[in-house]
Amino acid sequence: MKIGIIGGGSVGLLCAYYLSLYHDVTVVTRRQEQAAAIQSEGIRLYKGGEEFRADCSADTSINSDFDLLVVTVKQHQLQSVFSSLERIGKTNILFLQNGMGHIHDLKDWHVGHSIYVGIVEHGAVRKSDTAVDHTGLGAIKWSAFDDAEPDRLNILFQHNHSDFPIYYETDWYRLLTGKLIVNACINPLTALLQVKNGELLTTPAYLAFMKLVFQEACRILKLENEEKAWERVQAVCGQTKENRSSMLVDVIGGRQTEADAIIGYLLKEASLQGLDAVHLEFLYGSIKALERNTNKVF
Amino acid sequence: MKIGIIGGGSVGLLCAYYLSLYHDVTVVTRRQEQAAAIQSEGIRLYKGGEEFRADCSADTSINSDFDLLVVTVKQHQLQSVFSSLERIGKTNILFLQNGMGHIHDLKDWHVGHSIYVGIVEHGAVRKSDTAVDHTGLGAIKWSAFDDAEPDRLNILFQHNHSDFPIYYETDWYRLLTGKLIVNACINPLTALLQVKNGELLTTPAYLAFMKLVFQEACRILKLENEEKAWERVQAVCGQTKENRSSMLVDVIGGRQTEADAIIGYLLKEASLQGLDAVHLEFLYGSIKALERNTNKVF
Repeated sequence: MKIGIIGGGSVGLLCAYYLSLYHDVTVVTRRQEQAAAIQSEGIRLYKGGEEFRADCSADTSINSDFDLLVVTVKQHQLQSVFSSLERIGKTNILFLQNGMGHIHDLKDWHVGHSIYVGIVEHGAVRKSDTAVDHTGLGAIKWSAFDDAEPDRLNILFQHNHSDFPIYYETDWYRLLTGKLIVNACINPLTALLQVKNGELLTTPAYLAFMKLVFQEACRILKLENEEKAWERVQAVCGQTKENRSSMLVDVIGGRQTEADAIIGYLLKEASLQGLDAVHLEFLYGSIKALERNTNKVF
Repeated sequence: MKIGIIGGGSVGLLCAYYLSLYHDVTVVTRRQEQAAAIQSEGIRLYKGGEEFRADCSADTSINSDFDLLVVTVKQHQLQSVFSSLERIGKTNILFLQNGMGHIHDLKDWHVGHSIYVGIVEHGAVRKSDTAVDHTGLGAIKWSAFDDAEPDRLNILFQHNHSDFPIYYETDWYRLLTGKLIVNACINPLTALLQVKNGELLTTPAYLAFMKLVFQEACRILKLENEEKAWERVQAVCGQTKENRSSMLVDVIGGRQTEADAIIGYLLKEASLQGLDAVHLEFLYGSIKALERNTNKVF
């Protein structure tokens, strides 16, 4: 099958490598140099001290027919992707963004494509334009958005590498909110406090503050089983206790964070539902202030 | 009377100028150059577009007999001042620090001096080693700490310049906590959100978050009239709506903030009383992380 991967970041390169083992994959990048490099060198993947290589096509625009497009750019880079996708024939599109900021956009996006959404539970670090380090084995979980037909993708994803499992989930809302609540609890706090994930468990006041954030997010997301969700948040903190969250890494690196994708979605939902979200508003404002600061040298 | 002013910052220079109009004042500075400059040039004060000048002595150590010592250094610079003060004969000492971090130190400091504490409600900006801009006319309010005798200072402060009133208050705890609660509500939030004071009133979620911080601080300080205190916090926000708080200015300037003096005191009290302080702990941790960051270039 012909699969297009939009975005040449860590998730894009990871997907391109593994999907190219069973499919004809083209990576669509923003920069011409990256497309040329992938086209000539293929993609290298590092895993457990070993190096693997896969051939891949690459391009800077979506100009052939694909059975599936996998959109791997960050949520704040989606707008230009949407306009490209509006100009192509109807196809299947899987969106793999962090957070849920793109959900409000997708709900308003009536273009005839079959839309799927998913989450990435792998650890991956881009090493160069053509190389990615698969640092944590996980899974991709996806679901049909609104009225899309899941069988199309189920057939496509029939065969996969055992280190790159792809699971279908029936309820997209449960799938995405299950990850969002974890990110909303862990990412902004670790970024502001500049602590590793585990410290949110070991400092009692931070755990109590995280619980207040959790309760606010739960109310907005209308989660069914709050207790189980809270156990999951704490479990992820514990399992990743030595990790720096992506938001902390972005803040330290002076990059735009995924605050809009993660907290922005919750604030928009709170506003639509007429709910208070004082902790989330404060976290959002503080992260945005940090982003402004790290973009200038004091 | 002979008055020694310890510290040549904005408050130190302001006090030295006004008190030298009625007393024999010596400014005690850390740096030899500043002492020499004050000794030779005196102190210039700018106010309402005019320049004023007063003669002052200056020194780098406390080596003569004073009727009163006014300690104007910041709380985090107090430790070295304490050791100097332990080596001199018994006298009257007025501490003019922001926050209440020094209160725990003063309670454990049994050296026979008569101790007074006060707050500064003036706006003042140091322009040079010998010049200060009196940007906001206010007052100094002081009180006797523990068993010190207020009459000694009341006699000393009988005559003052009308732009530099000095008021006696009977209850030191009420005096200091009244200012602390305002600082605890406004300073950390504006520093983290990077907003002017007024925005804490005009953004409803920020006001609601500030209320949570206020309630936590009230419980720790055991304030008598919560409602009145909350009105005062909001009134100060409104009166200073165009101002950047000192903590925000320190964060932007990459300097150590007064987080220990303000939030640190509350956290220590909470811990002594076995009370929760999850918002204050979070604010403290986040401000400390900002301080670490601004001391390095990302």
